[in-house]
Amino acid sequence: MSAPEYLLRPVGYVRSSLKSRSEAPRQGNEGAPSASIEVEPAWRAGLSGIEVGHELIVLSWFHEARRDVLKLHPRNDPSLPVTGVFATRSPDRPNPIGLHRVRVLSVGDGSLEVEPLEAIDGTPIIDIKPVLQVADD
Amino acid sequence: MSAPEYLLRPVGYVRSSLKSRSEAPRQGNEGAPSASIEVEPAWRAGLSGIEVGHELIVLSWFHEARRDVLKLHPRNDPSLPVTGVFATRSPDRPNPIGLHRVRVLSVGDGSLEVEPLEAIDGTPIIDIKPVLQVADD
Repeated sequence: MSAPEYLLRPVGYVRSSLKSRSEAPRQGNEGAPSASIEVEPAWRAGLSGIEVGHELIVLSWFHEARRDVLKLHPRNDPSLPVTGVFATRSPDRPNPIGLHRVRVLSVGDGSLEVEPLEAIDGTPIIDIKPVLQVADD
Repeated sequence: MSAPEYLLRPVGYVRSSLKSRSEAPRQGNEGAPSASIEVEPAWRAGLSGIEVGHELIVLSWFHEARRDVLKLHPRNDPSLPVTGVFATRSPDRPNPIGLHRVRVLSVGDGSLEVEPLEAIDGTPIIDIKPVLQVADD
């Protein structure tokens, strides 16, 4: 019996001044710019209730990532010991999902301007969630 | 042109005393038990470096969720105003990804015991990430 697979549908895309992985910081808090999330028309009603100043968790799909990496040097730094991919935040991972904590700067018609966001222009967005105040995740 | 779709492959599964959605608390910090994450043999090397006491973000796939919900009453509470799904943590969402912040209780051979975890028995796990101390997400 083969393992199940699940289909992800992008709900939107990143529009950013960052155009390539080599330009992008490794984490949002390492100097990432603000960026826009443009939500597809079919899903825009799902943004209702999101307001300026809210803290969100944005999940992206690193469409340029490798999916066959099991161990690596964290931060691609050879001086750091090789470790399992699940103990790192590398974009190269079996399911290359990015997790970005951002603040809402403005809310447009089907779009959100947020910061900081280290994902590059064109990155698919697969989910948007509010930060829970109690759990702070 | 049709929209792209991406294939998710489960990297493991939840083993839990929670057997149905009706038994499960809405969030981990609302009384969820400890549970085991059993990682598939092909991906076990990716756990290297995870130790007891680490804080992790576990991403799950709510395989019993509805994917056509755009607006809903948060927490299924009719007294709360209808809001967009991206402003809630409802498991029913376009890509039903669950985000769980957990602590590692023990590390086995290809498995992690963690708490708290509100996902039910058999829930697919799609990613495991360390919590970043700086960003705390």
